[in-house]
Amino acid sequence: SVAQRSRGLATIRPQTSLFQPLDVFPERHIGPDDKEASLMLSKLGYKSMDAFIDATVPPKIRIAANAMDNNSIPVLSESQLQARAKELGGQNKPFKSYIGMGYHTAVVPPVVLRNVMENPAWYTPYTPYQPEIAQGRLESLVNFQTMVMSLTSMDIANASLLDEATAAAEAMVMAFVSTSQKKRSFLVDSVVSPQTLAVLRLRAKGFGINLVVGDAATALEDQGLRSDLCGVLVQYPDINGSIKDYGSLAQSVHAAGGLVACATDLLALALLKPPGEWGADIVFGNSARFGVPAGYGGPHAAFFAVTDSLKRKMPGRLIGRSRDALGQPAYRLSLQTREQHIRREKATSNICTSQALLANMAAMYAVYHGPAGIRRIAVKVHGYAQSLKSAIESMGYRVENTSFFDTLTVDTSPVTSGAAVVHAAAAAANINLRQVDDKRVGVTFDESAAPNDLVALLNVFASAPSARKLSLSDLQEPTGTAIPPSLQRTSEYLPHPVFNKHHSETEMLRYINHLASKDISLVHSMIPLGSCTMKLNSTSSMIPITWPEYSTVHPFAPHDQVAGYRTIIKELEQDLCKITGFHSATLQPNSGAAGEYAGLCVIRAYHESRGEGHRNICLIPLSAHGTNPASAVMAGLKVVSVKVLPDGNLDLGDLKVKAELHKDNLAAFMITYPSTFGVFEAGVQDACKIIHDNGGQVYLDGANLNAQIGLTNPAKCGGDVCHLNLHKTFAIPHGGGGPGVGPICVAEHLAPFLPSHPMLPEKGDQAIDAVAAAPFGSASIALISWAYIKMLGGKGLSDSSKMALLNANYMASRLSDHYNLRYKNENGRVAHELLIDLAEFTKSAGLKVGDFAKRLQDYGFHPPTCSWPTPTCMLIEPTESETLEELDRFCDAMIQIRKEVEDIITGAQPRDNNVLTNAPHPISVIASTEWDRPYSRETAVYPLPWLKEKKFWPTVARVDDAYGDLNLVCDCPSVEELSS
Amino acid sequence: SVAQRSRGLATIRPQTSLFQPLDVFPERHIGPDDKEASLMLSKLGYKSMDAFIDATVPPKIRIAANAMDNNSIPVLSESQLQARAKELGGQNKPFKSYIGMGYHTAVVPPVVLRNVMENPAWYTPYTPYQPEIAQGRLESLVNFQTMVMSLTSMDIANASLLDEATAAAEAMVMAFVSTSQKKRSFLVDSVVSPQTLAVLRLRAKGFGINLVVGDAATALEDQGLRSDLCGVLVQYPDINGSIKDYGSLAQSVHAAGGLVACATDLLALALLKPPGEWGADIVFGNSARFGVPAGYGGPHAAFFAVTDSLKRKMPGRLIGRSRDALGQPAYRLSLQTREQHIRREKATSNICTSQALLANMAAMYAVYHGPAGIRRIAVKVHGYAQSLKSAIESMGYRVENTSFFDTLTVDTSPVTSGAAVVHAAAAAANINLRQVDDKRVGVTFDESAAPNDLVALLNVFASAPSARKLSLSDLQEPTGTAIPPSLQRTSEYLPHPVFNKHHSETEMLRYINHLASKDISLVHSMIPLGSCTMKLNSTSSMIPITWPEYSTVHPFAPHDQVAGYRTIIKELEQDLCKITGFHSATLQPNSGAAGEYAGLCVIRAYHESRGEGHRNICLIPLSAHGTNPASAVMAGLKVVSVKVLPDGNLDLGDLKVKAELHKDNLAAFMITYPSTFGVFEAGVQDACKIIHDNGGQVYLDGANLNAQIGLTNPAKCGGDVCHLNLHKTFAIPHGGGGPGVGPICVAEHLAPFLPSHPMLPEKGDQAIDAVAAAPFGSASIALISWAYIKMLGGKGLSDSSKMALLNANYMASRLSDHYNLRYKNENGRVAHELLIDLAEFTKSAGLKVGDFAKRLQDYGFHPPTCSWPTPTCMLIEPTESETLEELDRFCDAMIQIRKEVEDIITGAQPRDNNVLTNAPHPISVIASTEWDRPYSRETAVYPLPWLKEKKFWPTVARVDDAYGDLNLVCDCPSVEELSS
Ligand SMILES: Cc1ncc(COP(=O)(O)O)c(C=O)c1O
Ligand SMILES: Cc1ncc(COP(=O)(O)O)c(C=O)c1O
Ligand SMILES: O=C([O-])O
Repeated sequence: SVAQRSRGLATIRPQTSLFQPLDVFPERHIGPDDKEASLMLSKLGYKSMDAFIDATVPPKIRIAANAMDNNSIPVLSESQLQARAKELGGQNKPFKSYIGMGYHTAVVPPVVLRNVMENPAWYTPYTPYQPEIAQGRLESLVNFQTMVMSLTSMDIANASLLDEATAAAEAMVMAFVSTSQKKRSFLVDSVVSPQTLAVLRLRAKGFGINLVVGDAATALEDQGLRSDLCGVLVQYPDINGSIKDYGSLAQSVHAAGGLVACATDLLALALLKPPGEWGADIVFGNSARFGVPAGYGGPHAAFFAVTDSLKRKMPGRLIGRSRDALGQPAYRLSLQTREQHIRREKATSNICTSQALLANMAAMYAVYHGPAGIRRIAVKVHGYAQSLKSAIESMGYRVENTSFFDTLTVDTSPVTSGAAVVHAAAAAANINLRQVDDKRVGVTFDESAAPNDLVALLNVFASAPSARKLSLSDLQEPTGTAIPPSLQRTSEYLPHPVFNKHHSETEMLRYINHLASKDISLVHSMIPLGSCTMKLNSTSSMIPITWPEYSTVHPFAPHDQVAGYRTIIKELEQDLCKITGFHSATLQPNSGAAGEYAGLCVIRAYHESRGEGHRNICLIPLSAHGTNPASAVMAGLKVVSVKVLPDGNLDLGDLKVKAELHKDNLAAFMITYPSTFGVFEAGVQDACKIIHDNGGQVYLDGANLNAQIGLTNPAKCGGDVCHLNLHKTFAIPHGGGGPGVGPICVAEHLAPFLPSHPMLPEKGDQAIDAVAAAPFGSASIALISWAYIKMLGGKGLSDSSKMALLNANYMASRLSDHYNLRYKNENGRVAHELLIDLAEFTKSAGLKVGDFAKRLQDYGFHPPTCSWPTPTCMLIEPTESETLEELDRFCDAMIQIRKEVEDIITGAQPRDNNVLTNAPHPISVIASTEWDRPYSRETAVYPLPWLKEKKFWPTVARVDDAYGDLNLVCDCPSVEELSS
Repeated sequence: SVAQRSRGLATIRPQTSLFQPLDVFPERHIGPDDKEASLMLSKLGYKSMDAFIDATVPPKIRIAANAMDNNSIPVLSESQLQARAKELGGQNKPFKSYIGMGYHTAVVPPVVLRNVMENPAWYTPYTPYQPEIAQGRLESLVNFQTMVMSLTSMDIANASLLDEATAAAEAMVMAFVSTSQKKRSFLVDSVVSPQTLAVLRLRAKGFGINLVVGDAATALEDQGLRSDLCGVLVQYPDINGSIKDYGSLAQSVHAAGGLVACATDLLALALLKPPGEWGADIVFGNSARFGVPAGYGGPHAAFFAVTDSLKRKMPGRLIGRSRDALGQPAYRLSLQTREQHIRREKATSNICTSQALLANMAAMYAVYHGPAGIRRIAVKVHGYAQSLKSAIESMGYRVENTSFFDTLTVDTSPVTSGAAVVHAAAAAANINLRQVDDKRVGVTFDESAAPNDLVALLNVFASAPSARKLSLSDLQEPTGTAIPPSLQRTSEYLPHPVFNKHHSETEMLRYINHLASKDISLVHSMIPLGSCTMKLNSTSSMIPITWPEYSTVHPFAPHDQVAGYRTIIKELEQDLCKITGFHSATLQPNSGAAGEYAGLCVIRAYHESRGEGHRNICLIPLSAHGTNPASAVMAGLKVVSVKVLPDGNLDLGDLKVKAELHKDNLAAFMITYPSTFGVFEAGVQDACKIIHDNGGQVYLDGANLNAQIGLTNPAKCGGDVCHLNLHKTFAIPHGGGGPGVGPICVAEHLAPFLPSHPMLPEKGDQAIDAVAAAPFGSASIALISWAYIKMLGGKGLSDSSKMALLNANYMASRLSDHYNLRYKNENGRVAHELLIDLAEFTKSAGLKVGDFAKRLQDYGFHPPTCSWPTPTCMLIEPTESETLEELDRFCDAMIQIRKEVEDIITGAQPRDNNVLTNAPHPISVIASTEWDRPYSRETAVYPLPWLKEKKFWPTVARVDDAYGDLNLVCDCPSVEELSS
């Protein structure tokens, strides 16, 4: 190891000018310093970084050295960035929003804000695929699931989807699939949110579903519709606030063989009869009003719950309770066999990254408030709506909905010349109301409203009919309820101990901290997950997102109130275009997979616009991430697989054959670059040419963009569209499984087709329908990538990619002396990640990839990506943020494990009872009185000396996957279970 | 145990009115809910809280039930508080400060801001008296000491004092004491900071030191002064920015038998010859420009370093490296025998709570920047000053100092009609300059300055002589330096590995997190330290203090710029007066002990004002905290001890005898209420009457105020003055040993004597001199107590005291079945804390208090206060914030330990090798291959079942105190040490 446990006394560089800032970000973001970089280069045999890059990246695809420098993207220091973010934040006008439509001003419990949302221990972990070092957030996600199941009265719930509108689309597809795709008509009640409808429209098109929008109460009288019906979607309460009884509708839909999907609101369910009690099969919605900021659209966790019979078809991540090797309870991800990375083109959902962090926040909100607290908040919100209603009715306004929870639709015509008068008065008071139509305005209350807000709102309405200023005394405390008696909730909710014992801030803080203490994250050690790019998520980029000027903005706020957000979005889109070489971008997709779907829909729309709507073949290499084929299917494409050569390269011959075979119907080719094997394929441009020659478009999966910046780009490689995972390359933290942002960038000819949104009137008429609930997706965290790019500048971005390549190659060089490195190029180089093959050890030592992974946990590391893209491999990606010392620590661990394996191969240790097969070793194991293993306790837990000073301890022994899938339990323990 | 592991499904209370806020703080602050409170009351045999209180607090001292309710202190909800704090923050004007004088706009590394200052794991621990569960912050404090030693070139440094001015006073007293108090003259150079001078004046008075202010270069020519000289104090660079060579002065002072104390600036020392190289004996200053916000005065850590020969006389906390029972390195607090809690009236310093959190921040700043980074910052600051100097000299201004680091004193008269013209231009540009005199202004640069700031400043100066707007191009990059060649630094600094390997943000984050993971804090479990009141430090109260509108304000900013701060200070003072029953208050003292000193000085000034300056006897019970006698001595008083009865009560007979004996000279009586034994003495008013009858004033030590609010108060008890520990009763977090705030409240007759400050012109002429460097002490954290009081309101405050009493009595009741409860009143009640006596076990089992304390660590608890106020006792204080479940957990642990002790008593376990004497047991112990102890590993570490789910692990075995004091090593390991 060359690092020798120190970064050396070097190399914070002296200033070149007195007037240069000192708090420059690249020095802090890039792990190795100059001395370490030189050491690594010389170990690899290069005199300079340039020489190394020349040997690593194929010359054909290189872009000019100055294509990505501080002229193309100027650099800001950390404090300059803060100042700029403040300035732009000041351009978002702080209006009080009553727009509703699924978005609210949440009240984030301060202890949750600071200790979850602003805490790297919560925001930097990865998706909990390694349950032994993730029991904390797994428990919290089970709390989320339990909260959803209990409030909706459904049998099972998953641990979040991307947003309410895409959850609606997932529900529709479940209904479709549950009829074996035989019945194609899906009825949507006309009073659902416009964004839900827009997303449904596009998704229905991809699947060939016949979407019928109509009045749920009467539409089923049409026998034609009934006979082809796969499902119905209603919203409860509906977009206008009304609460209707869908009980008999549900019976009728079930009689017709369809499913009932219900969009709803968790807070309302504290007072409403839950959908599970009137017959809904699928219940979903946005959980954000449980303590997650509006953030101009997100990120927010959607919830999704189904009846027991549908559980194995449910999309998204599902956490279950299982047991570990010692028989102790342990949480884990369940039923992964139903996910797209397994089912590929047979999958009907492509969801991968979801909204774990926000689901955890919502769950913590429920833990903090408990059933009594949630009820109290629901009563208040309902009471405010009641109070306003009586007050404005007495002024002459007509409230259209007689039943409601928090939302009133107000006919202004009895009192005013039109809704515009009321909106104008509202604007003058810094208030936003929902724009319904010329006559009507909408008002939705949330937890944040205070008496003075209500008074201000009252005076908005009062200003039209009267000039008298009203005050609190003009408002009445409501008596009774506006919820129809038959739809009032009578069942209890959240009786589980976890929701009833952490109500003091001290207890809450300890609970949050206790769970965090069970989870490994970037605050502990490197997370070398291939394809996931777990790099620094800098504090400077995280700070602005919780400033109120960003966090409280409603996604449908009028454009003139969000100049700050608009500038950030525009700058980020422009920078991403510079980086990818493309023309236009959209931030709407909420994950990489959502980007894939969006990009393919754009390609389809392009073909259609040229009268080639029949083009429906999508070529995808076998090595592609499972989301690729799943997304293709969702976009209505047929997947044709392309072979991959043993060295990781695409089989260009096979590609050519298939492209030509399908040339009349070729729609698209999806390719990941560098490939999922960590290979810079020199032939990428040739591959793209083959596709273009045969009338197809090239979709470039940009998950691996971290290898490219400033060296090549997707346009140069020959692509037409790509998505980027901002939560990989552009430093949005992984959040324990999300949020993500998956923008797509497109060449000029595809720009007109980028997604529209019902609240984005400026989009042209060629635009496809929305792919997400909010116009700019998870807008608030786009700030993180915007800040990341601005603080690195073009040079820093490019240096980061170079260092990511160097770090990976250094590791490949060290590890290849001990392990079988699957691929390197003719110069001996890998890209930004490396694939090592452990197949040989199955025979020689009876070991599987999982044994190596679990053993790495004992060394205090999160394992690399396992068994993907190749079942016997580990895919290792260090990123530029790790120092040489940390790379060496990881390599030392892997090499020591190799020695441990040697003992098994030679028979010095038994094949069925050794440090690998028994890994990981939690403290409870070594604390036990008995010890009958053929190795010592110290060998088990301190195999290398530095572990005594610094080690992350798994909290459970190896988790039993089979048991968990067989005995699926997805909620928290009840009072009875805990006391037994 | 009655809690049965759940708070029940109760008692977030339903709203009484729709218009009441829901985010009410008392529900979150007070641990037990209604159900738990009822359980505890019934366990104690009371029907109501009132009945319990009546049996607990002596009727004679009770105040009216409505004396402290929401009429006297109105309540704000958490969000209302945030809004109010925002509003007031907006009233502090964001001027850019060049005032200097020891305070700067620090650039806080974002990763330190969020992960240290805003992280409860760093701000809620207690002073590291239990080293086995505090290795993280002990290591960080050693980093602080090392940083100071290295930059100053001194042999040894402590882990912070309260501020630079009080550090100067400590230095003066060390010099005085080192002559065995024989030489009484102490020379202070006239060009030191005015606040330093003010604090020195008052302290000199108390000790009878003859303070001579004069020109250091010439004053020693006076032979009279030389012969009585105990020391000289200089400032380097001086208040006007000049850098002088004090080498020959030092020789001359040493020749005269005195010591040289030097105030200095750590950043300047990156470029200046360090004081240790030119002969200083004591070097001190403010470390805040190393990444600690100005905060309108603090809190900031002062540094203090001395030569080897003075180390055992140094005040404050000193961290050393020792070893643990396994021979492994371990950190600990060293040389405690020199502290006031041991030396009492023989102590010459009363410092107790200091500035640990801020010292940790400064140390982390040095870790983050390293020597190269610090040098770069120093070069920039110096360069800005040079650049400004050339620019304004070319306009005709005269810069008076030719040598300088960051500060220029500018004679404006050649160009303007006076300094006022320049100040006016500055004010118009939102800039503050130092007000020197009619002709001269001062400019001090800091790290925060950017080129546009320099241009703005340039234009301030330009506006008088010219109308031309200047730009960056009018500034020159400096060449050379303004530091005299002989005073340039040539020696290296901070070569230690810790300052050279954590420069990437990722590494820094991991280091911060790694250290935090070694420390127990309120995020883990209760910290039942008697007399320390470790209660919830709420997020809502912590959030505002790092808002820039509070954190960046210079303490000497003109009054009209700080209306927000002034309102908060006034409201807090008023609320504290309501709570104590007194007339006036000051927030200036930076700790409880500093408050004691201030209060006693006020009493002395009062006597003097009545021609009774000879009154110099201070009666203090033997049970008093060690700071009381130490403070009395510092105020020039003679301590006469008063006996305490075995039941904890003051011996009123002895008091009477001594008061009468000393009646001609009686100055004061100091009493803690409830007493340090946790006793509500019914005779407190009688005691006070005795004092008043004999001409004395009563000083009430308010450390235990948490027992009193709304039930009684210091005025009602008979006091004339009291201090409050805002870091106890009023929820300022303990910060791992500070910061503290120790305001004093006084009766009307003492109000005129409250401390003044050179920058507080409005104080009357009877006011005593300053007791702290900043006019309002650590003003920024006064916000925390202000928020705490406002969010609880009168009723919540009073309910908190009641619950603190109930919690303590519940514990007393459970524990008294197993342990010897030293005191209870005639109704069987204790106050807010309880004293259990472990003396019996020395004989029966060979155990000391420390053995119980270390064993409690194995149960995941921080031990209670040990061996104070009685060597064989533990003093347990739960506070109102702990739930019944947590109280039970702690009691269960104590009871289980009692069972373990029984095994030793009966001989089932050996006296010299058992779970107590071997405690604590870190993981490394149970991981060891050999195990030859007479108990199992599981018994060692999991003595109760819940520990398997949740346990805090000590990281070292029992630390060897004797070894550490004998082999005093107080800096970090060097490269050589680490590599060996
Ligand atoms: C190559 C590749 N493509 C696509 C995706 C999907 O991205 P997301 O998880 O954001 O949906 C991933 C995610 O890991 C990936 O590695
Ligand atoms: C009774 C008592 N008095 C005075 C003090 C001194 O307060 P501080 O540590 O803030 O200087 C303490 C501190 O613990 C105390 O317990
Ligand atoms: O800090 C104390 O000495 O109590």
